[in-house]
Amino acid sequence: MTDNSPAIDRLFEAVSSKGHVCVGLDTCADYVPPEERRKAKNDSEAVLAFNKAIIDAAFEAAACFKVQIAYYEEMGVEGLCTYAQTLKYIRDKKGIVIADIKRGDIADTALRYANAHFSGDFEADLVTLNPYMGMDAIEPWLSLAQTRNKGAFVLMRTSNPGMKDFQYPELANGKRLYNEVGEKLAALPKGNNGYGLFGAVVGCTESEEAAKIRKDYPSLFFLIPGYGAQGGGAKEAALLLREKNGGIVNASRSIITAWQKEGKTAENAHKMLDNKFAAEAAARAAIKMRDEIQAIL
Amino acid sequence: MTDNSPAIDRLFEAVSSKGHVCVGLDTCADYVPPEERRKAKNDSEAVLAFNKAIIDAAFEAAACFKVQIAYYEEMGVEGLCTYAQTLKYIRDKKGIVIADIKRGDIADTALRYANAHFSGDFEADLVTLNPYMGMDAIEPWLSLAQTRNKGAFVLMRTSNPGMKDFQYPELANGKRLYNEVGEKLAALPKGNNGYGLFGAVVGCTESEEAAKIRKDYPSLFFLIPGYGAQGGGAKEAALLLREKNGGIVNASRSIITAWQKEGKTAENAHKMLDNKFAAEAAARAAIKMRDEIQAIL
Repeated sequence: MTDNSPAIDRLFEAVSSKGHVCVGLDTCADYVPPEERRKAKNDSEAVLAFNKAIIDAAFEAAACFKVQIAYYEEMGVEGLCTYAQTLKYIRDKKGIVIADIKRGDIADTALRYANAHFSGDFEADLVTLNPYMGMDAIEPWLSLAQTRNKGAFVLMRTSNPGMKDFQYPELANGKRLYNEVGEKLAALPKGNNGYGLFGAVVGCTESEEAAKIRKDYPSLFFLIPGYGAQGGGAKEAALLLREKNGGIVNASRSIITAWQKEGKTAENAHKMLDNKFAAEAAARAAIKMRDEIQAIL
Repeated sequence: MTDNSPAIDRLFEAVSSKGHVCVGLDTCADYVPPEERRKAKNDSEAVLAFNKAIIDAAFEAAACFKVQIAYYEEMGVEGLCTYAQTLKYIRDKKGIVIADIKRGDIADTALRYANAHFSGDFEADLVTLNPYMGMDAIEPWLSLAQTRNKGAFVLMRTSNPGMKDFQYPELANGKRLYNEVGEKLAALPKGNNGYGLFGAVVGCTESEEAAKIRKDYPSLFFLIPGYGAQGGGAKEAALLLREKNGGIVNASRSIITAWQKEGKTAENAHKMLDNKFAAEAAARAAIKMRDEIQAIL
């Protein structure tokens, strides 16, 4: 499959036409309806069938999908086959897929990783990267990204409590460590819509700080995690958007396990809780989230 | 296989009896003798046979092995089978293997990664971790490490030029960012030899700073990269050791591609440059490195 414009531009267009929702496929076998899991040859196959049903049902409401590789690595080699097939399924449908891999290594090793995730079995449209080792852990991805119209989101200011440990300390120059990351990212080449080819993961839930980050880095496209599960809602996410674009908002568990909650209502007491039911519940959750964000912009 | 003492203690004992060399299996198919590569079914198989030969030949001179997963991810699902089999081969021989994976994610995702690399197909004795997201990217590994006698090395102060970007900035409190990592790591539980269950990756090549890091963090066991290829030598490495222990020194390319250099000498002009030759050259390189470090302590 060839992609004929930078991934960040394709993402910009997808947000314009479909809204801001990124559906996170952090799928473990426990999230698969028990009857479907029982019927599957093994957990990896159960997860793949579940993912495909979710992707089909939520496709129109999702600007993109994010696949968290840890859930697949946990299942070993078979799990990584499911990971590869999930990515391929999304890309074959002309969807955009972000590989949430948070890799971060330097020099030749970085190039190996870039080859691994921008081509071959594990080819994705964008990846997540970790900047701790420095820009020489980011830059080797860039030339391959430019050749192959790929992109990346680099961890900048995450929303977990431990964020305070190493991202947040105040520097001697008065800035916070994560500002150093933001400034280096803002200097990278840009796509056709003015956003940098590599964006940032910013999961802020404090409104004053979120507004400042958005203002300080107007050219960074944000991957915004933490919707639902981590306490953030449409209001918090909206602070990190810009001119109704400039970011995607990820939700994983609240979408892919929506069926568990819906399945308990009286109305659904006699329904078969299968992948079809789970996928429809996921689509409803994605549409609701999309509309909540749109309503506030 | 059950391991009956903390990985960091097993590593301490291995250093006492075998020296400080960690052999890095950052193996790509280009490092395999061409004749062997040609004979193999595919590159993944070629790499596996090459690795096994190196492991057997260098086993006595190596305190441990480090396997850089990026080289295997690049080869896709088949490459990860080779990765899994390489780890298993080392562990079946009762060797110690460090999975150089530099993962760093939080909460449930961190637990998935820990399951992935402390059990199952990809089981290793120790892993490398990235602290950028905070201690909640490190702590979830700890309980499983304690249950299963595993360990980790957390990136602290690396030796690549980009290290200056985000590890090295001076903080408002007068310390460097990497000191915050060191202090958090020094507070984690310790093994039987007084070293923390989780050590640090410290690849310093400036001697004053190296001596200070060693003094400031006496209980941290160090994984020291950069020997040979990145400009560091025995003298630089020795500054990071303590009482003839307290660290392992990694070399990858200078050991596993030693055969390429040796193969060009007149003496070897008529020899078959096969895996046996490559493995013997690797063993000689590991012994030379071990002895260079011992000589300086």
